[in-house]
Amino acid sequence: MNSRQDQPTYPTALGASSLHTITLLGQDLADDVMGKVGFGELAFWLATQRRPTTGEVRVFEAVLAALADHGFTPTAIVTRLTYLSAPDSIQGALAAGLLGGGSRFLGVTEDTGKFLHTVLAGIEGELPTAHSDWDKVALEVVQNRRAENAFVPGLGHHVHKQGDPRTPRLMQIATEEGLFGPHLALFAAIGRVHPQVLGKTLPLNGAGVCGAALADLGLPLQLLRGFALLARTAGLIGQLAEELHRPVGNDIFLSVDLHNESVDPEPYPYSS
Amino acid sequence: MNSRQDQPTYPTALGASSLHTITLLGQDLADDVMGKVGFGELAFWLATQRRPTTGEVRVFEAVLAALADHGFTPTAIVTRLTYLSAPDSIQGALAAGLLGGGSRFLGVTEDTGKFLHTVLAGIEGELPTAHSDWDKVALEVVQNRRAENAFVPGLGHHVHKQGDPRTPRLMQIATEEGLFGPHLALFAAIGRVHPQVLGKTLPLNGAGVCGAALADLGLPLQLLRGFALLARTAGLIGQLAEELHRPVGNDIFLSVDLHNESVDPEPYPYSS
Amino acid sequence: MNSRQDQPTYPTALGASSLHTITLLGQDLADDVMGKVGFGELAFWLATQRRPTTGEVRVFEAVLAALADHGFTPTAIVTRLTYLSAPDSIQGALAAGLLGGGSRFLGVTEDTGKFLHTVLAGIEGELPTAHSDWDKVALEVVQNRRAENAFVPGLGHHVHKQGDPRTPRLMQIATEEGLFGPHLALFAAIGRVHPQVLGKTLPLNGAGVCGAALADLGLPLQLLRGFALLARTAGLIGQLAEELHRPVGNDIFLSVDLHNESVDPEPYPYSS
Amino acid sequence: MNSRQDQPTYPTALGASSLHTITLLGQDLADDVMGKVGFGELAFWLATQRRPTTGEVRVFEAVLAALADHGFTPTAIVTRLTYLSAPDSIQGALAAGLLGGGSRFLGVTEDTGKFLHTVLAGIEGELPTAHSDWDKVALEVVQNRRAENAFVPGLGHHVHKQGDPRTPRLMQIATEEGLFGPHLALFAAIGRVHPQVLGKTLPLNGAGVCGAALADLGLPLQLLRGFALLARTAGLIGQLAEELHRPVGNDIFLSVDLHNESVDPEPYPYSS
Repeated sequence: MNSRQDQPTYPTALGASSLHTITLLGQDLADDVMGKVGFGELAFWLATQRRPTTGEVRVFEAVLAALADHGFTPTAIVTRLTYLSAPDSIQGALAAGLLGGGSRFLGVTEDTGKFLHTVLAGIEGELPTAHSDWDKVALEVVQNRRAENAFVPGLGHHVHKQGDPRTPRLMQIATEEGLFGPHLALFAAIGRVHPQVLGKTLPLNGAGVCGAALADLGLPLQLLRGFALLARTAGLIGQLAEELHRPVGNDIFLSVDLHNESVDPEPYPYSS
Repeated sequence: MNSRQDQPTYPTALGASSLHTITLLGQDLADDVMGKVGFGELAFWLATQRRPTTGEVRVFEAVLAALADHGFTPTAIVTRLTYLSAPDSIQGALAAGLLGGGSRFLGVTEDTGKFLHTVLAGIEGELPTAHSDWDKVALEVVQNRRAENAFVPGLGHHVHKQGDPRTPRLMQIATEEGLFGPHLALFAAIGRVHPQVLGKTLPLNGAGVCGAALADLGLPLQLLRGFALLARTAGLIGQLAEELHRPVGNDIFLSVDLHNESVDPEPYPYSS
Repeated sequence: MNSRQDQPTYPTALGASSLHTITLLGQDLADDVMGKVGFGELAFWLATQRRPTTGEVRVFEAVLAALADHGFTPTAIVTRLTYLSAPDSIQGALAAGLLGGGSRFLGVTEDTGKFLHTVLAGIEGELPTAHSDWDKVALEVVQNRRAENAFVPGLGHHVHKQGDPRTPRLMQIATEEGLFGPHLALFAAIGRVHPQVLGKTLPLNGAGVCGAALADLGLPLQLLRGFALLARTAGLIGQLAEELHRPVGNDIFLSVDLHNESVDPEPYPYSS
Repeated sequence: MNSRQDQPTYPTALGASSLHTITLLGQDLADDVMGKVGFGELAFWLATQRRPTTGEVRVFEAVLAALADHGFTPTAIVTRLTYLSAPDSIQGALAAGLLGGGSRFLGVTEDTGKFLHTVLAGIEGELPTAHSDWDKVALEVVQNRRAENAFVPGLGHHVHKQGDPRTPRLMQIATEEGLFGPHLALFAAIGRVHPQVLGKTLPLNGAGVCGAALADLGLPLQLLRGFALLARTAGLIGQLAEELHRPVGNDIFLSVDLHNESVDPEPYPYSS
């Protein structure tokens, strides 16, 4: 409770309104935000309560573009099937798709950002500046993960085996904007050194580089998955718009239902 | 089924990838989208499969700004409480909040856009150009609604009783960009003429003007609610970020739980 | 507000607890509910705030059984795909599946219950008792719908074209329990008379008869869809359990993703 | 892929239908399930693909009763607020409530079941039978958790500080049905021995004992949270039914919105 007994108040710097004005983030919504602040810029501002620079917006929007839509992912299929089944509820179709944004498909962004951050937080003294120093840090990181028999988040891709085109592009954009920070530097170093530990070359994937870039932008680490979900919301609206004009949901449903194979129940083994 | 028996294919112009490239909307994602296309622009493009003009992006992003966050709405409270209860699932907290985006709170945008569109579709011959001609159309619209004892979507606001500041501002931006189309023209006319039918002056509300502007942009009418939800996703991330730093979810929960009043069950009357 | 200014209280007859006791619906949870009240019985009690009779529980649970699982429906596929994508969130996988419980797939139960109820509410004087009198009512109902070019809810099934086995069975159970009320009577009459209006014989479907039975039980009409969702929650847990032991989610995903067909973007026609 | 190339089939022992019959779990749905299988029994069967005994059903339904509704929890509030905001979508209101069923509020059941199971899996040789032998195991468990500075799942309750009435009651029911297995035995032993390690007596809570009982029933450990959600679905329907007759959602919303306190934005500290 944060005020007199029985009646807490609820502080917020987000939206507020009175008879004649609406404010958002302390700004006059109509005069200072509408028509003046882009949507990516606003999303960044809402998440950090500070207005981003033009360069930060460019990197941030590049990340959102990279994550917006990946074709017929489970989340896209889910949104289309839910719309097929409940066309009266657009909010339900979008929410259902977002619920697939968990550890496996959309989680890499968050996992990579957090992983890199933990490594950086453990470095005593100043952070490296030279490539060769970053490489030493990265080498130890990869060796440790290997010793723990654990993956390095952000490394490897099932399609782009020879390199994910988003990765060098996002690094280039961050560099152009002077925002190639320690998370990206460490991630890049991991890309350089891991073959000498793992004995094979894996690509730094796009979801991972996005996590590194978002962390370098100072966005809240606990919410990195949230930005992937924001990007995906735009993508899922695109999936719904396409479903309206070029429907495939019913075909997907039938391709499963017509190939069901009825089998006998088989009591599951007790877990114990 | 859209191809040889047993094996439908699923056409899409959205995301696709091969060993070396990723395309989105027929563009090379890395080279042509990342760093070059803003997030609002991309969301518009995904929803229409055509690249918007700079002016269209400005109007569209003004709408998203207008709808992003309205403080402690039910959706914002729901996202904070769900995060309190299940902090392991950001996607669940966002999805829960979006599920409140239904007919009552976020539906006005969609309802207004569809309503105006239906009126326009019923006009025979050319659309009006002069204010006075729009006023005649609007007068008939308001009279008809009144005769049906029905509200005019987008008219009235429980706080901004003397005018919603978003409405003139969005009309101004649309005008500046040459995008003040028939939906906005009709909506404005309703604002001018309704007092002579209803006997009182109600404000044209912000949610309604957003619906009119989105319809003028040619966005799919069935998905207008989706754009409100996209805007709100950014707002809900802002709510979560603030909850991390200035938590109120537990206070809200306790303020309800501690003031519960245990009453006797009372069998509900049969509906029949 | 329902109490002194600034501090509403929130009345409820549902769960409440104090240092030593927990009550639910005015009962002592531990002593009077646990071990003594079945789950179907409890769900009915929670929804009506009155304890159902044994017969009511039997009809209610027969409805839940009829609606629990229908194989690879969109909702089942959605739950499996969401689990594939976000295995860390069982609640997300179940919620995503339930979101498909809208107008098209699960809505028939609610639509039929409400439709029958509206007809009954419009009958002046006493309700019929004889078959022949119900037939007269039903005949008019079907004729009116035909005149409006509208479907009769609950009539027709894409698989069980010669009769849905759940329909006579549920009517039998309701009869055995003395709970074959006016909604079921009208629904049965519609089954008898519609061929003379429509010129073909359609089955009374299982979802529809469930709606009629739930309405006869006096359950809240606005929540009939909720009971279908309760039944389906059990079914979706079954889908998840089977997915753990006999996974098909990834095969479903790949069968779509591998057969995507990249096409050129095609600007959607303006709605206006 | 589990069949010929290009066309997987999808095996299931759950619902299947053909022109004249519907089967569920290998049973004829109309003849063998409807009217003969209770809802709790069916939910158990669906989750394990084996029909439970009468005793198993009684314990299972006692668990569901214990978890169905706990008054104005965050999940209950969320369902009411979502219904307030989107009354057109019952499925959305229920789904939103279930999304709060995560680690903090509903997770104790799953955590306790899994924790006990891990301990049992680590016992070499035969499991204890005597109280005193269970106590030795429990003592080591509690000491280890303490050494790791970790909580023992299922221990402690913020209201029922002197004992949760559900705990002895569920143990009694399990004993009566001959289903007091090793998970419950270990949990009870933890209740007996923890004071000598922790220096204070904490209650074994109801959510925890439910997890122990579900694990003893052989239900899938990965889905224990799912049963809590099934129980809660019934509870949330109760919340919605009560909201229809004794609404509090709008009061809750206003009690927050009217006590919002507008503060200046404060840029969040960089995580790094």
